[in-house]
Amino acid sequence: METKKRILTGIRPTGALHLGHYVGALENWVRLQESYECFFLIADYQALGDHMDDIDGIRSSVLEVTLDWLAVGLDPAKSTFEVQSYVPQHAELHMLLSMVLPLSWLQRNPTLKSEMESLESEHKTLSLGFYNYPASQVADILLPRAHLVPVGDDQLPHIEMTREVARRFNRLFAPVFPEPDALVGRVPRLVGIDGQAKMSKSLGNCIYLKDDEAEVTNKVRRMFTDPTRIHATDPGHVEGNPVFIYHDVFNKDVDEVNELKERYKAGTVGDVEVKRRLAKALNEFLEPIRARRGEYEVRMDDVKDILRDGSSRARVTAEETMNEVRDAMRLRYTE
Amino acid sequence: METKKRILTGIRPTGALHLGHYVGALENWVRLQESYECFFLIADYQALGDHMDDIDGIRSSVLEVTLDWLAVGLDPAKSTFEVQSYVPQHAELHMLLSMVLPLSWLQRNPTLKSEMESLESEHKTLSLGFYNYPASQVADILLPRAHLVPVGDDQLPHIEMTREVARRFNRLFAPVFPEPDALVGRVPRLVGIDGQAKMSKSLGNCIYLKDDEAEVTNKVRRMFTDPTRIHATDPGHVEGNPVFIYHDVFNKDVDEVNELKERYKAGTVGDVEVKRRLAKALNEFLEPIRARRGEYEVRMDDVKDILRDGSSRARVTAEETMNEVRDAMRLRYTE
Repeated sequence: METKKRILTGIRPTGALHLGHYVGALENWVRLQESYECFFLIADYQALGDHMDDIDGIRSSVLEVTLDWLAVGLDPAKSTFEVQSYVPQHAELHMLLSMVLPLSWLQRNPTLKSEMESLESEHKTLSLGFYNYPASQVADILLPRAHLVPVGDDQLPHIEMTREVARRFNRLFAPVFPEPDALVGRVPRLVGIDGQAKMSKSLGNCIYLKDDEAEVTNKVRRMFTDPTRIHATDPGHVEGNPVFIYHDVFNKDVDEVNELKERYKAGTVGDVEVKRRLAKALNEFLEPIRARRGEYEVRMDDVKDILRDGSSRARVTAEETMNEVRDAMRLRYTE
Repeated sequence: METKKRILTGIRPTGALHLGHYVGALENWVRLQESYECFFLIADYQALGDHMDDIDGIRSSVLEVTLDWLAVGLDPAKSTFEVQSYVPQHAELHMLLSMVLPLSWLQRNPTLKSEMESLESEHKTLSLGFYNYPASQVADILLPRAHLVPVGDDQLPHIEMTREVARRFNRLFAPVFPEPDALVGRVPRLVGIDGQAKMSKSLGNCIYLKDDEAEVTNKVRRMFTDPTRIHATDPGHVEGNPVFIYHDVFNKDVDEVNELKERYKAGTVGDVEVKRRLAKALNEFLEPIRARRGEYEVRMDDVKDILRDGSSRARVTAEETMNEVRDAMRLRYTE
């Protein structure tokens, strides 16, 4: 029997998930869970690194994220849902791998650098935990010995570092870890409804997977479109226009989208109509997701069981890896 | 019934223990184990931070250190001997406390700074684990909620940081941790036999607790004394003279020491005689230590059991603390 290759991917519990998460990650996860053994990680340690002042938010987000995962069709019967702090081996492997990881690799990590600058510009206190988070991510990925890591493009430097740590460990001790590949989603960065480069909770420009029909319609109505267009009869721009970007990504009726584009460029359709069609398409897309979410929302005890059981399964896999790591490093003093 | 206050102290397994360890630490530990509940930690993570290239050395040192501890009279029936990597909660608490610990506290830590400079001057690769070691030490101390930490004076900045982290955690969440006090030994830095400021394995200027009678006599014969004295009839200097420093520290016959000092200053006793008396005093001091070591050396399975059992007891105490930490931080998502 061929064993499936493994995936580790995850998300920081810092809010409910939105359309950007879906096309950047979740749709891949749903597809990949059929052919891979998947570990979906709720990275609460990583959230604590820069949200220590909002543990209430982390707490509610852990369950929101789980509901969103179930809602989009991640299946806890096929895959492992785990909470980072429920699996102590994440911290243990982080500790051991930090011995193999040169400090200079963190110092030159471009994502960490820019995130540190951004936190400092907000006058937030940088914690040691935040500084350690790329190394913690390395440990998260290597703990289940993942082969593939679906990931946002801003996290690519961390995956490269993971490969380097795996190589270094394997060379120093024994070939314990595969060198994982990164997989970036179909739309690495979905534009926000305000036209900013990225849909992001902190920018307040998101359509959430759990938004109801009226909220979605309302948000679409407020969407940023072509700022050069004053009247519905002016010829409009389609490229870089968030409304059309969303049509391309979410509207399954390609003919409708193409027709709207032609009419928009010709000045024969107004923003109101284009947005009405987008709201309809988005709501059609979101409807089954909302329905599944609704089914789970009334069974929160089962949702919690999914996290408990998944974390318990993850601990078993994790301990297998830790045993191989301890054997490889020969950290056995009493045998 | 009054519960005993707790001590956490420990040592990195990077070699057998010497006279400097004894007067800087061990003699205090032996005394304190009567009135405190003591946790004696073999800090193998911390050894890995800058000895990743010598795991064989760490492996043998874990058992050497345990033998030395038993030899000086630390009693595993009264105290807990534990190996850091055998108690995963050390890594877990390190992870959680790193979220509370501002990066700037590490950046300004004078001991870490000078140690990093020293490693860099030896062209060693600085690991992230090494950078994290003072924070790991904070977690080690807070894990058993220690009240007192017998420690070398170079580690005082880490104890101060431990107090700051305890205060910060208690203020942010709940009063889980006592603010531990530091206790520096009778002779914080014992001069080496070569006259250098510190007895240290890397300087090769040590008398080890396990050295036999001939080795001790031989090392004392080679000891650095008063470089200004050419003939035994020259008046000699006692202050700063390693041979007399050792006499003061280890020779229990105070009258003999005072008489030798007077005669040395007057030029009526030679180095050979002063050293002969020192070798005798040291061997008298070391004899019961060697004898106890010999008893355990032939029972290595029992020695290993002591580490296994101690680590197992330490895990129970550690899990109690981790439960309080998780309650305080409310990292309970599924209850």
